[in-house]
Amino acid sequence: MTEYSFLNEPEKPTVISKQFPGEKSAKNLQRLDKIQDTRSVVFVQDLDGSIGNYIKDIDGNLLLDVYCQISSIAVGYNNPRLTELAKSDKWVKAAINRPCLGVFPCEDWAETLESAFLRVAPKGLNQVFTATCGSTSNEIAFKACFMHQQLLKRGGSKDFTNEELTSCMVNEVPGSPNWCILSFKSAFHGRTLGTLSTTRSKPIHKVDIPSFHWPVAPFPSLKYPLEENIQYNLEEEKRCLLEFERIIKTWETPIAAIIVEPIQGEGGDNHASPQFFTELRRITRESNILMIVDEVQTGVATTGKFWAHEHWNLSTPPDFVTFSKKMQSGGVYHNLSTRAPHPYRNFNTWMGDPIRGYQAQFIVSEILDNNLTQLATTVGEYLKAELMKISASYPDLVANVRGQGTFMAFDSVDTATRDKIISLMRLNGLQQRVNMGGSGVKSVRLRPMLIFGLKHAKIFVEALQLVCKNY
Amino acid sequence: MTEYSFLNEPEKPTVISKQFPGEKSAKNLQRLDKIQDTRSVVFVQDLDGSIGNYIKDIDGNLLLDVYCQISSIAVGYNNPRLTELAKSDKWVKAAINRPCLGVFPCEDWAETLESAFLRVAPKGLNQVFTATCGSTSNEIAFKACFMHQQLLKRGGSKDFTNEELTSCMVNEVPGSPNWCILSFKSAFHGRTLGTLSTTRSKPIHKVDIPSFHWPVAPFPSLKYPLEENIQYNLEEEKRCLLEFERIIKTWETPIAAIIVEPIQGEGGDNHASPQFFTELRRITRESNILMIVDEVQTGVATTGKFWAHEHWNLSTPPDFVTFSKKMQSGGVYHNLSTRAPHPYRNFNTWMGDPIRGYQAQFIVSEILDNNLTQLATTVGEYLKAELMKISASYPDLVANVRGQGTFMAFDSVDTATRDKIISLMRLNGLQQRVNMGGSGVKSVRLRPMLIFGLKHAKIFVEALQLVCKNY
Repeated sequence: MTEYSFLNEPEKPTVISKQFPGEKSAKNLQRLDKIQDTRSVVFVQDLDGSIGNYIKDIDGNLLLDVYCQISSIAVGYNNPRLTELAKSDKWVKAAINRPCLGVFPCEDWAETLESAFLRVAPKGLNQVFTATCGSTSNEIAFKACFMHQQLLKRGGSKDFTNEELTSCMVNEVPGSPNWCILSFKSAFHGRTLGTLSTTRSKPIHKVDIPSFHWPVAPFPSLKYPLEENIQYNLEEEKRCLLEFERIIKTWETPIAAIIVEPIQGEGGDNHASPQFFTELRRITRESNILMIVDEVQTGVATTGKFWAHEHWNLSTPPDFVTFSKKMQSGGVYHNLSTRAPHPYRNFNTWMGDPIRGYQAQFIVSEILDNNLTQLATTVGEYLKAELMKISASYPDLVANVRGQGTFMAFDSVDTATRDKIISLMRLNGLQQRVNMGGSGVKSVRLRPMLIFGLKHAKIFVEALQLVCKNY
Repeated sequence: MTEYSFLNEPEKPTVISKQFPGEKSAKNLQRLDKIQDTRSVVFVQDLDGSIGNYIKDIDGNLLLDVYCQISSIAVGYNNPRLTELAKSDKWVKAAINRPCLGVFPCEDWAETLESAFLRVAPKGLNQVFTATCGSTSNEIAFKACFMHQQLLKRGGSKDFTNEELTSCMVNEVPGSPNWCILSFKSAFHGRTLGTLSTTRSKPIHKVDIPSFHWPVAPFPSLKYPLEENIQYNLEEEKRCLLEFERIIKTWETPIAAIIVEPIQGEGGDNHASPQFFTELRRITRESNILMIVDEVQTGVATTGKFWAHEHWNLSTPPDFVTFSKKMQSGGVYHNLSTRAPHPYRNFNTWMGDPIRGYQAQFIVSEILDNNLTQLATTVGEYLKAELMKISASYPDLVANVRGQGTFMAFDSVDTATRDKIISLMRLNGLQQRVNMGGSGVKSVRLRPMLIFGLKHAKIFVEALQLVCKNY
């Protein structure tokens, strides 16, 4: 297995500070805090000094990064070929003359969509609508679902009644119909009011914010390792599917679509089996409910397939697949039947950003040319095996090891322990320091880049062993 | 009055094609249409050939642009100093290593916020939360309003009840409270489900999409020119204010905030007087309702003030001012009292984009250094006077001339006439061709750049005269 070589990447982390944020970071944050809330900041990044798998802060600390800007860096900090691309004429002109892609698209927009997004389109989907972030991608998918359901309800007619056109202006039925989107317990789909109505990960995201009264179905709460708990998990998934069917039959308003993550990447790295998702697909099809697969976090090669839902081998593709993060551009895959029946309905000023399209084009081609999907599989297998060993010795610190590719997680016994482990990983005494992030209530999520090789995985494992030993 | 000089800007438009889209554009769009809906596309842009106030398409047509990517280009296509900035190390590194600004901000983020956004902050507001577009900026403002109202309701306590934390997870009261946002007839505030619930411009944006049952108040329907219809307009505004007061007293759910545009830039360029807005401010303050001023389209110097609401001379600033488009970065101005009481509540992966911050920094400094706000006033006065003359001769084609600075509009007698004028302006036979856009049902909106000088205005006026003469 050839690893992705990265010019000038250091051999190991270097940490100087005795705490995070370090002194310079703390001083910088005092200035920032006058303008913006900084309570969520870990440290101030040195963009210039970060390289490959290593993130540098302005205090001079260089950490192996397995969090990667909340899972959104694909092929390394300061990738030299990407630097070159960002200095090219086409990139610069698109950056400074940002076009309205829906009204005055630039000449290479079709070509960019083809080579950036369609080149890796999920099987069965050949349309893509670009957006600026994960939340807006999901909002666009929701709107497409509502429009499509209404089109079907009208028997394919594109004509609206006068009553619909009038009532929608005062947010009333029939023009503003009561369709809803079903999501799953612990899901995360975004923070705008529409997507937040489907997010179910943590109360702090939702409390005080008005929401649509939309249904939530249970997501399986599996026992790990999956191989050792087959029967229990099968029954748990069956329970969830029965409850799902009950809800869609009895919910107070019609369900336009369900939205589901292949792995719940924000709400605790919760997995379900391919059979579970296949059943969801079967039931949604039989019930004329559309299916949105949210691959904002799971997408882009990290699970060992380009899209995590490819692990399911569905016989009918999902109706929508949304993405963002590692792709740099947000967007929605779908097919022609769900293109809005009239123009200007899923439309906005920018409709994405050509430079993020160019960046996606580069990232996709790096992944395919260097077989980085396979690398994620190989490194993921190593990581899982090593984490299982650590788990055997320190079950309170590292338990429930799970993952696909390098999209991996483990649990600590409680939130405080988890948070302490994350903090110690940045600060342990042996210069093997790692930047990690949490997920859900007591999980640690690993979200390394696609260029994270075995040598990086070994540094991570060694650091975690030391932290556990000295906890 | 010195005008902004633009190296290599042509003296006049050049049009080759006999129709739009031209042949090459049409061919390019066939390819694009296989992937994305192209029914809203006018032509395919040549980013390389567009310069200053002139937009070029791939058929070689060069049009004077008074639409400017739906009002979102500030200081000229291919501004040479912006090109230089976009090739700088700091820009390139921020572009390719896009940081999570809420967790790992880059070193110059505080400085960027200060010099890009705080330098021109509306009086009384000293906080800014950056976002990626206008819709998400307004969504963020809505959430901040809900959180603030709930904080006040709790008497300033930051503690949630268990019932709130539990009920919000199933989208039910009290955790998901029934606060609403009031907007005005013909308003446009975005297309996400939350902001779309406040958008009231056209049924096609809203029909088939579920919405929050939020109230709409009448926006004054004034007679133009304003100077000649003072008494009528005063009474119309009074009528609207009375109705507004009635709604806020009687609406079924409590109103957290109102959102209003200084000029309704999408819904027909509808104006109201400073007194009207001052009254809105007075009433909202007396009723403990927050006030969001949506300056996504009116902001950034085009009306002859940096922010259009500065024309009102409010004694108490709005609680929130949102922006995007010409600023390149979306965002929300507010003050410390409306910073969320807990971290991670108005939060997301990217929280804006540093390169759009750098671009805003450049644009702001170009505006201030070159007094482009004054240029908008001067050119606007000329435009208005000339449009009034044309209106006197062709009242069916050009009526109700109105505007502030170069943020100007006129009405045609109906939609078909308006659309034909826009089309003829691109195609009239005398090589003075202009790219314009519509607004509302029968209005044309002028949204030239901030570097649109008198010589450009003269080309526009001459073209419109010819179109009217030969209509």
